[in-house]
Amino acid sequence: MLEPVKVGVLGLGTVGGGTVHVLQRNAKEIARRAGRGIVVSHACAKEINQTHPYSVDDIVLTEQLTDVVNHPQVDIVVELLGGTTIARDITLQAIANGKHVVTANKALIAAHGNEIFAAAQEKGVVIAFEAAVGGGIPVIKAVREGLAGNQIDWVAGIINGTSNFILTEMREKGSEFSDVLAQAQQLGYAEKDPTFDIEGIDAAHKLTILASIAFGIPLQFDKVYKEGITKITQEDVQYAEELGYRIKHLGITQRSEKGVEVRVHPTLISNKCLLANVEGVMNAVLVESDALGQSLYYGAGAGALPTGSAIVADLVDVTRTLTTDPGNRVPHLAFQQNALVDLPILPIEDIETAYYLRMTALDKLGVLAKVTQILSEQQISIEAIIQKEPLCGAPHVSVVILTHKVVEKQLNQAIQAIENLEGITGEITRIRLEILDG
Amino acid sequence: MLEPVKVGVLGLGTVGGGTVHVLQRNAKEIARRAGRGIVVSHACAKEINQTHPYSVDDIVLTEQLTDVVNHPQVDIVVELLGGTTIARDITLQAIANGKHVVTANKALIAAHGNEIFAAAQEKGVVIAFEAAVGGGIPVIKAVREGLAGNQIDWVAGIINGTSNFILTEMREKGSEFSDVLAQAQQLGYAEKDPTFDIEGIDAAHKLTILASIAFGIPLQFDKVYKEGITKITQEDVQYAEELGYRIKHLGITQRSEKGVEVRVHPTLISNKCLLANVEGVMNAVLVESDALGQSLYYGAGAGALPTGSAIVADLVDVTRTLTTDPGNRVPHLAFQQNALVDLPILPIEDIETAYYLRMTALDKLGVLAKVTQILSEQQISIEAIIQKEPLCGAPHVSVVILTHKVVEKQLNQAIQAIENLEGITGEITRIRLEILDG
Repeated sequence: MLEPVKVGVLGLGTVGGGTVHVLQRNAKEIARRAGRGIVVSHACAKEINQTHPYSVDDIVLTEQLTDVVNHPQVDIVVELLGGTTIARDITLQAIANGKHVVTANKALIAAHGNEIFAAAQEKGVVIAFEAAVGGGIPVIKAVREGLAGNQIDWVAGIINGTSNFILTEMREKGSEFSDVLAQAQQLGYAEKDPTFDIEGIDAAHKLTILASIAFGIPLQFDKVYKEGITKITQEDVQYAEELGYRIKHLGITQRSEKGVEVRVHPTLISNKCLLANVEGVMNAVLVESDALGQSLYYGAGAGALPTGSAIVADLVDVTRTLTTDPGNRVPHLAFQQNALVDLPILPIEDIETAYYLRMTALDKLGVLAKVTQILSEQQISIEAIIQKEPLCGAPHVSVVILTHKVVEKQLNQAIQAIENLEGITGEITRIRLEILDG
Repeated sequence: MLEPVKVGVLGLGTVGGGTVHVLQRNAKEIARRAGRGIVVSHACAKEINQTHPYSVDDIVLTEQLTDVVNHPQVDIVVELLGGTTIARDITLQAIANGKHVVTANKALIAAHGNEIFAAAQEKGVVIAFEAAVGGGIPVIKAVREGLAGNQIDWVAGIINGTSNFILTEMREKGSEFSDVLAQAQQLGYAEKDPTFDIEGIDAAHKLTILASIAFGIPLQFDKVYKEGITKITQEDVQYAEELGYRIKHLGITQRSEKGVEVRVHPTLISNKCLLANVEGVMNAVLVESDALGQSLYYGAGAGALPTGSAIVADLVDVTRTLTTDPGNRVPHLAFQQNALVDLPILPIEDIETAYYLRMTALDKLGVLAKVTQILSEQQISIEAIIQKEPLCGAPHVSVVILTHKVVEKQLNQAIQAIENLEGITGEITRIRLEILDG
């Protein structure tokens, strides 16, 4: 295997810490995918959170940005400083030194991306910025590579989690804007100065980038129309609901005959569409393109580990470009051919899920008691029971039971015992039930 | 610019035709992204649909598969034959000839992928199969590259559009399974012999692939648990609804301490989760991974153009690997630096959307008439009006109006005129309304 790739991280705050954490925790899986290790060798930070869940034992720590970007051993620089002044200077310096750069800095790309990409092009290095839009959702990759065959018609996205959290709480709890904002600040979902989020500036940075990769136009942040959510009242939220709509803060970019629309504002959308059902701090981007039609990309738009996930994906992509032999390409099954592992595939009998059971019972006292006794003997606990009144004169009733999780083998035994009961007729219908809440 | 890449297509049916169509219609955009043209030079077909929307003028047509895979000019072979016998032989022959292969054939990959990838590895060629799972949704790319930093915990997907269409119709229309199946066959959503779809075999092919790229295990189709939707009754659909659930046909693969679960079966899931709201023939894949948490990928799982979209994305990816200079990498803004175009960004006044308007009116006969007259003078037509009864004794009422689409400039004029009306107090609240239906 090749030598590990060496990464220098500028900033060990929330996202920097998350990136180091993900790289260390998943080091083995990442090397299985990338074909070589990816390690943080240098990091620049004023101070480090003392309760960090990662190790700094093998990292050279410094307070000087130039110690990282000028170090000959550093292959890739991860820029997590935020802002557009120092971040711009240091990114250009890293490029001048021939370093590839991975960044989560949407403001930097939106404001200075044209200049930075031109410098990178000249030096032959890569600037990767998946984490700049939609946090951990691989939406840059989806639009830029996954939709490469399409003409993109429009993109509409919930790309600011703070605004979406506030609008969700206003609808679900009936609270007013200012109260939810205070709550969001307490929960850490909104900054002390929330202007960038609630006035649409953060969303406009991200939409600037989406418009460019959708339509192949230069980045033009200053031309984006920006409107935040500060004027949305409880009254509007309720009227929208009554009319079958939901208010979401969307970034919309659309190609028309006259040019390109790039606009950020509160928007009513039908409560039936998927985007309307993206709630809380979650992000989602809906794309309409000529060949695929509508596609949607959903996930966590912020946070240490989700953003770290996007940065590590970029680090893997950049790592693949460092050598050019075929063994370095994206492996067919995500992991290198010789790194596949032979985990056993479990037989269905050993799998544990919850169940929906439907049976037909004679409406006779005691049948239900016997059924529940059999379930209890197999240690199957019950989440819910519905017993339907028998139809006029009919001797049979339907009994529907939702169980908690149970190993299939045990359920099979219980079902057999129940089907043998006097008072139960026919086969029991069973459908598995999944919670899908992680 | 480099010479165009030459593609040989095996099969000009629905998907083959869609692929040629997308390549021709979007030739300019594709070349802007890939840095060179991608053209179909050869195609093998027994017969061609006479109403095809693409041109065959520049394509060498043949009835012999070997004419395509043995031709020295063909750089990339697109295999769209279906099945696992001839498709396997001809794919291995293409690989032996040093051709890269793009395929939509999930059965082939699920059954013979291990052998095919080993042969490709040895020859240094790429096998790309984005179209094999989730049709046009770039879900292979998302899981394989976008989540490269994550340990994946589980994947749960609606990956058979026919089954999802049937279950959706059963719930929405109250129809029985057999009636909806007949309807799906009439609409072309189900084959004459629907076994592969309704018995879970097609979903199992796709899940085999998802399990491998999620966990880095060899493809093992024969170990997948398969259960279709043929036993789901209207009664079950209704009981599930009553309990707050919805029945979906899911492919689920999950890592546990003992091994890997790979199973396809009908499943109850909460009607609040996004996956439960994926309706009709649409597909969606939900992934739970350790760094990102939940992410979801949604779109068209079948059809000529959507599947063509995935095949063309693969062709672009393979094209990027044909030369290894930096100019050939994925461009930062999706399009090559020198291929950016300077489309004008439109000012917000020129943009057309529908509107939600809320105003406070004195409850006086005639005010509403004046408001609607002003709107009509500006040629703004009304979709809906709500007028709330005034609170006991209060002189004011809220009037909410949904408009049809209008250019912002005109709306501004109307709003100014309405705000000047006697009988209207305060500012009018306005929120844009989007249909998002393409």
